[in-house]
Amino acid sequence: MSGTTVGDIGEERLLRLIAERIGPAAAGEVWAGDDAAVVRSTGDRSLWTTDALVEGVDFDLSYCSGFDVGWKAVAVNVSDIAAMGGRPRHLLATLFVPPSAELAWVEDLLRGLLVAAQRWDASLVGGDISSAPSIGLSVALAGVPAHAPVLRSGARPGDRICVTGALGGAAGGLFLLRKGEADRAPELCRRQLRPEARAEEGVILATLGITSMIDVSDGLLLDLGRLLRAGQVGCSVDPTLVPVDGALQALRKIDGAPKPERLALSGGEDFELLFTVDPRAIERAGELLAEIGTELTEIGRVAEGPRMVGSLALDEWEDKGWDHLKDR
Amino acid sequence: MSGTTVGDIGEERLLRLIAERIGPAAAGEVWAGDDAAVVRSTGDRSLWTTDALVEGVDFDLSYCSGFDVGWKAVAVNVSDIAAMGGRPRHLLATLFVPPSAELAWVEDLLRGLLVAAQRWDASLVGGDISSAPSIGLSVALAGVPAHAPVLRSGARPGDRICVTGALGGAAGGLFLLRKGEADRAPELCRRQLRPEARAEEGVILATLGITSMIDVSDGLLLDLGRLLRAGQVGCSVDPTLVPVDGALQALRKIDGAPKPERLALSGGEDFELLFTVDPRAIERAGELLAEIGTELTEIGRVAEGPRMVGSLALDEWEDKGWDHLKDR
Repeated sequence: MSGTTVGDIGEERLLRLIAERIGPAAAGEVWAGDDAAVVRSTGDRSLWTTDALVEGVDFDLSYCSGFDVGWKAVAVNVSDIAAMGGRPRHLLATLFVPPSAELAWVEDLLRGLLVAAQRWDASLVGGDISSAPSIGLSVALAGVPAHAPVLRSGARPGDRICVTGALGGAAGGLFLLRKGEADRAPELCRRQLRPEARAEEGVILATLGITSMIDVSDGLLLDLGRLLRAGQVGCSVDPTLVPVDGALQALRKIDGAPKPERLALSGGEDFELLFTVDPRAIERAGELLAEIGTELTEIGRVAEGPRMVGSLALDEWEDKGWDHLKDR
Repeated sequence: MSGTTVGDIGEERLLRLIAERIGPAAAGEVWAGDDAAVVRSTGDRSLWTTDALVEGVDFDLSYCSGFDVGWKAVAVNVSDIAAMGGRPRHLLATLFVPPSAELAWVEDLLRGLLVAAQRWDASLVGGDISSAPSIGLSVALAGVPAHAPVLRSGARPGDRICVTGALGGAAGGLFLLRKGEADRAPELCRRQLRPEARAEEGVILATLGITSMIDVSDGLLLDLGRLLRAGQVGCSVDPTLVPVDGALQALRKIDGAPKPERLALSGGEDFELLFTVDPRAIERAGELLAEIGTELTEIGRVAEGPRMVGSLALDEWEDKGWDHLKDR
């Protein structure tokens, strides 16, 4: 009943198939098929990031298609480039796959990679395939800063702390997918399986001269802590202002489901942008983001003192965030 | 008896430890610790490659230290950049590691990565850690062409086919390591565990205007086939001219050991450079390589006709090479 496997066709033919799907290189460039890709440089600086997805850790084949995995591996990297205020350009993908994997599944993953790359105007220019006991996908992405790169470390006391969109949706989706109840809120599951990255928003915010930025990949509180530690500053954040994904209301009817507010504070993988900005620039930021349909919410301010979220110090909240290696 | 594990210290502290080891960024750059690394671009083109090592497939913890794995992951990527005639510059590393892995082992791997990066004048600028069922290490490396990039596709009939150094040693080392008889020929084991990449040689050859190049990673015959297919040319190669690693003589006394000549033709991971060159440039190439202590051997010539190695067509030999997904 099962179809052709990766082992059936072998590495050589699989690499050729992938090179065909990647298609011809841009003028003056060389993509898949040589020892390394040749790409044109633009500007005097590049942004470089890498992020990986692992079967059984970051995704589960029981609820996830190959396309989902390919898409998400691109999105999480685009989100990192967005959080620097950059535009994604070229990506390399390394696929870890058991020889017993179905070729059709791998082709679906490749489609997900290519469609997501196109979605964000980036090109898959090469990669590698390795035999491995379980499936994994590592993507390295190079981008260019649209303006000066926005670091994590630039927050100054008095800046406002803002976040794009709404939070908690992706973690809510993960809860439903694991429970096998995706149909209770398909929009939450979509946030988990096919995340969007705030690429355009990152460039707009960088151009406005915001002072620091990070993407919310591991939960708001955990990523807020990273941002503030990098800037060596404190904060006063009102947890009731944190925008909660509206679709999470569907969880209220499910026994044992986590509360939407908790997911908004500590759920990971929403890939919204968390940033600090001079108070005089907030209105303009809100207007520009509204033009592309993205909400912006001010949740607090940068301070010299301790890091307070409501009446609790951030450290007291922090272990409610996700720590991949400890929790999983 | 066992020491601290990766899970004991958690992702956050491990990332900070790695950022400390990576050290301060070059002027005007940002390395580990932000959403993406910021690096300076030089020249109008970049070379990009990625290659991964997987536990149980590419290495075995019974004979391999963390340092070995870190070193080799860099070397294999440097070899790809060398085969384009480029210089390595910046690398990203993604480590897949079970929470139960010993922290000391991971620190040893990190040392191997950093020492190898320094060996080839490249900088580790960032990376990622993922929890995974077994250990894997994926490295992405960016370099710059020293001259025009040397593609696989440029071979022309009449060109000579040459190879640097000697072949088969790394495969011989793997045989001994798996047999637990490393002391029979430590120099072979070293070729397997701590391979050198022909970085300087690649640049010298590119500057001489050689017509095509590939690194010998999967065995001479297999990589020769790739080079000739890319150039859509044939060849006449004399298999008795292929330089056999002298240390392989140690295998002759071991029952069941593969013959040195067979390893030189089909053993992988020697990371020598295989290239084609106009016959008028061979002498100069030999002189320049001799100056840095590297031998060059002419093993045949590019032809319009079929691909012949001795009296056999290359395709008849080819399945003696390694196909990662089929053989392992």
